[in-house]
Amino acid sequence: MLNNKEWFTECYTNFGVGFGLQIKSKLHEEKSPFQSIAIYETTNFGNLMTIDDIVMLTSRDNFFYHEMMSHPVLFTHPNPKNVVIIGGGDCGTLKEVLKHPVTSVTQIDIDERVTRLAEIYFPELCTSNHDARANLLFLDGIRWMQEAKTGSVDVIIVDSTDPIGPAEGLFNRAFYEQCHRVLAADGILVQQSESPLIHQTLLRDMRMAMKDAQFSDLFTLPFPQPVYPSGWWSATMAAKKPLLSKFRRDDNLLKSLETKYYQFGLHEGALTPIPFLQEILK
Amino acid sequence: MLNNKEWFTECYTNFGVGFGLQIKSKLHEEKSPFQSIAIYETTNFGNLMTIDDIVMLTSRDNFFYHEMMSHPVLFTHPNPKNVVIIGGGDCGTLKEVLKHPVTSVTQIDIDERVTRLAEIYFPELCTSNHDARANLLFLDGIRWMQEAKTGSVDVIIVDSTDPIGPAEGLFNRAFYEQCHRVLAADGILVQQSESPLIHQTLLRDMRMAMKDAQFSDLFTLPFPQPVYPSGWWSATMAAKKPLLSKFRRDDNLLKSLETKYYQFGLHEGALTPIPFLQEILK
Repeated sequence: MLNNKEWFTECYTNFGVGFGLQIKSKLHEEKSPFQSIAIYETTNFGNLMTIDDIVMLTSRDNFFYHEMMSHPVLFTHPNPKNVVIIGGGDCGTLKEVLKHPVTSVTQIDIDERVTRLAEIYFPELCTSNHDARANLLFLDGIRWMQEAKTGSVDVIIVDSTDPIGPAEGLFNRAFYEQCHRVLAADGILVQQSESPLIHQTLLRDMRMAMKDAQFSDLFTLPFPQPVYPSGWWSATMAAKKPLLSKFRRDDNLLKSLETKYYQFGLHEGALTPIPFLQEILK
Repeated sequence: MLNNKEWFTECYTNFGVGFGLQIKSKLHEEKSPFQSIAIYETTNFGNLMTIDDIVMLTSRDNFFYHEMMSHPVLFTHPNPKNVVIIGGGDCGTLKEVLKHPVTSVTQIDIDERVTRLAEIYFPELCTSNHDARANLLFLDGIRWMQEAKTGSVDVIIVDSTDPIGPAEGLFNRAFYEQCHRVLAADGILVQQSESPLIHQTLLRDMRMAMKDAQFSDLFTLPFPQPVYPSGWWSATMAAKKPLLSKFRRDDNLLKSLETKYYQFGLHEGALTPIPFLQEILK
């Protein structure tokens, strides 16, 4: 595994771990106004998208992330109708959300190029982009949230890159306060919250900022994500009132969703905290 | 991340993925009669043991594996008393097993050097090695099983290296038939069964061989293991009769076990199959 043409390699020197995917060829590379985007064909993981040389997704294993960013929160909210996705440019989360009987999904990604490239290199994630309920905007999600109507949204999904670069402003109290304002009384925010093993400080800071922004109920749900640092990732839900310790586990909808990873058992199981995480997240 | 002194790097070219740990120094290196063993000090994961240049364990994250190889099966068996561990030379599984009220644990690892090095570099895993119930043997586990008394064991834990080299003979029907014979009527075999994402063929073959050896009930339990390929690993249980769909979830013992990862919720949750795995393991 070398920094040569045969491997795309990512080194998290702060955490002392590295990860690589063997590649057949580089399919595309460009500098958008916001970031560098590259697409590779890998030997075993289908296509790979990187942003600023960080792995975003592969064809083979993105389903873990996209399902866990959408179904747990949508089965937790009593009746989600209006959903907002901040980020999510590859449209994989959007596709999962649209499997639910929502009335509108507004996706706000700052970089239209991510979506245009996903349409070409990850077409299977973009099959719902023209659903009548979907509204794809290419704007600054932070500003959009500042201008959004109070109490107008049921579920906010923050499907962003790491908290460096464009996404940095999505991981602080000011942003969470806007989300809290924009959510209806039983609204829920869910955000990708990095690795529960190697990003514990970030995870704790995020949760603290969510509490400071008056979210009273928090729930961090870990899941496998082989191409992300440590192979173990998480989504953190935040609600204005106690909603997160149960979900609509009798909803027959799941049977028709055709999920690959998500099932009610693992959602139920995650409601019992993992001992070492409970310590850390206290 | 380079093949140089700063990183220990493992490339699974068959699967197109690589993994690396940043190292401070190599603490030890030797060729035992069976394999090459090395110990490194890593920057963020404590000590690392490799065998034939494959990651075996690190101080930081071995608890996932050792807990999931021991507690699920021991809480599934109605009353485990006599336990056998094949492999397990680092003694981490032994330590977890001895947290249960078992009467004897016989550990059979072919390579005594693994245990002697674990005593030096992973002392926290070896604190129960002198427990009166523990019997550490350094023999060929395959032969030991052939010679063991019929119906004499409650739980067999196969905590081995990958099915190449010394461990190859632990992944086939002939070995499983011996395990089946040695287990009591309500006995359970559990074996590490590689990555549910990238070793699906192996996992399916293992399960097939277990069925061929007359194990009628099988249950594959996935869990995170950041330093193994894909960061997602599994243990597969095999029983002679239907035992694996429930466990002693009211047992107060768990409260006193001080597990870091294992809890009853995730065990319960795993009893509902993950959709894409159900397809594969059919």
